[in-house]
Amino acid sequence: MSKLLVLSRDEADYQRLIEAAQLPDLEFATEPGQADIVLGEPKLIRDALPSLANLRWVQSIYAGVEPLVDPGQRHDYILTNARGVFGELMSEYVFGYLLFLEKSILERIKAQEDKQWRRPESGVLRGKTIGLLGVGSIGGHLASTAKHFGMSVRGFTRESETSSQVDQYFHGDDLLKFADGLDYLVSVLPRTKDTNQIVNRALFHALPSRAVFINVGRGNTVDESALVDALNRGKIAAAVLDVFEKEPLPPDHPFWTTPNLYMTFHTSAISYPEDLTKLFIENYHYYLNAQPLKYQVDFERGY
Amino acid sequence: MSKLLVLSRDEADYQRLIEAAQLPDLEFATEPGQADIVLGEPKLIRDALPSLANLRWVQSIYAGVEPLVDPGQRHDYILTNARGVFGELMSEYVFGYLLFLEKSILERIKAQEDKQWRRPESGVLRGKTIGLLGVGSIGGHLASTAKHFGMSVRGFTRESETSSQVDQYFHGDDLLKFADGLDYLVSVLPRTKDTNQIVNRALFHALPSRAVFINVGRGNTVDESALVDALNRGKIAAAVLDVFEKEPLPPDHPFWTTPNLYMTFHTSAISYPEDLTKLFIENYHYYLNAQPLKYQVDFERGY
Repeated sequence: MSKLLVLSRDEADYQRLIEAAQLPDLEFATEPGQADIVLGEPKLIRDALPSLANLRWVQSIYAGVEPLVDPGQRHDYILTNARGVFGELMSEYVFGYLLFLEKSILERIKAQEDKQWRRPESGVLRGKTIGLLGVGSIGGHLASTAKHFGMSVRGFTRESETSSQVDQYFHGDDLLKFADGLDYLVSVLPRTKDTNQIVNRALFHALPSRAVFINVGRGNTVDESALVDALNRGKIAAAVLDVFEKEPLPPDHPFWTTPNLYMTFHTSAISYPEDLTKLFIENYHYYLNAQPLKYQVDFERGY
Repeated sequence: MSKLLVLSRDEADYQRLIEAAQLPDLEFATEPGQADIVLGEPKLIRDALPSLANLRWVQSIYAGVEPLVDPGQRHDYILTNARGVFGELMSEYVFGYLLFLEKSILERIKAQEDKQWRRPESGVLRGKTIGLLGVGSIGGHLASTAKHFGMSVRGFTRESETSSQVDQYFHGDDLLKFADGLDYLVSVLPRTKDTNQIVNRALFHALPSRAVFINVGRGNTVDESALVDALNRGKIAAAVLDVFEKEPLPPDHPFWTTPNLYMTFHTSAISYPEDLTKLFIENYHYYLNAQPLKYQVDFERGY
């Protein structure tokens, strides 16, 4: 009999959904030491690690698992993260903001407030080129939405070329070549030791001045002062940030007053218990049958 | 030898593009009386009709051809309108506004202006139900975008069921059944004698209070005072209008001050000469070979 511990602010939802699924040979742990399986938020799980004496498998409900892959923590269990469930939500966010900017929705609202039958210049997605920094399951979904809207898609990855929706892949030293001529640059990179400040001054310089940068990956990937500079000097047209080097964003951070910067606060893709429970159930059946689990994290690589 | 007359504000662009295509047996007319073919804007063509003695074919660069199907005008020529080219642009507009509303982009901008790390409630397209009033080439494209975003699609048409992307069709007396439970209602209906005020008080009453209404068809299809009332009383959540009964919208129209109403001014899909020239070239080859032209308008039906 497996014992499951749920560590999440949405614990009640997860318990209800998992109970309803009537999974074989599974019951809820009454204390942490019993649990061989933990489902939940990486930070809460990290804090509980010392008391999880029987731990064999952790299913994270987030994509980012930095607190658990941290080299100071124990890594003697299988860690699976949430993938496959955020692509659709990320597409809604990214293309929502791209369309918001292209369609000049704010300027149109101002025309209406001024009671003026005015037609602000507006643009189209069709025919534009989007560059994806990172093409895993989220990047692949963004690519498919871009193709639906008639766009060209470039992908920058370490070496993988998994999505057939990407028209052209770039790797290694070709980052600036990848950036050249992009209309939109979207980063979905995770926080690892290799992704620090990949989006830097040189990259902003390589982008056309019409370019829009969107970060739905992790804040460490961006040189934030280079971004402030690029926006202040009009080296790029706009930026949309969902993640930051330091969260919550400090009150004195220059981002608060940088022009053409749109910020949302780590909400671009929310973990819905319905989605995550589906993934957990699928993985639980693999676990039960001693088969490889889906979306296993490489502690060394960090994702 | 055919003689072509271009009647459009973008005349120079059309001349350049058509010259570059080097079409056989075609030259530009030096005066209206020579032209057997006219390409252009319906209103300008209507005004020129009396002098078009040799007219055989009109290619409209707009989808709406009301000035030409008007019963008071001559109908002794083939009229083709612009279809197939606006679907992509309409999808960008419609889904741009739906995402703008679902993602609470205005509330997020306010949070940023207040320097508050705030996370306004936001929604998703995935799983929602959209209802399309009219499913021609534009409606079909909207349906395909809706399916891409994981939505359910209902279509209301007179009788046609052309798009396979529509999950469920409704016709005739089933308009209120069609509206029941919709998250979004989008009208792409043309102005004809049968479409007057199809979107009326009873229809707004049948929609859930969370519903968003978008009109990218024609203004005559909406009972505008019923819409003002529905928004003022919260019978629907929001409306996005690109077209109006009277354009430009009169300065004293109640729409200017109605809450949760977003207006754009007949810009949801612009005619790009590149797109329209492609369609003209295709149709010109049919014309030259005495084959049926694409997107021929039925003067009686009105579209």
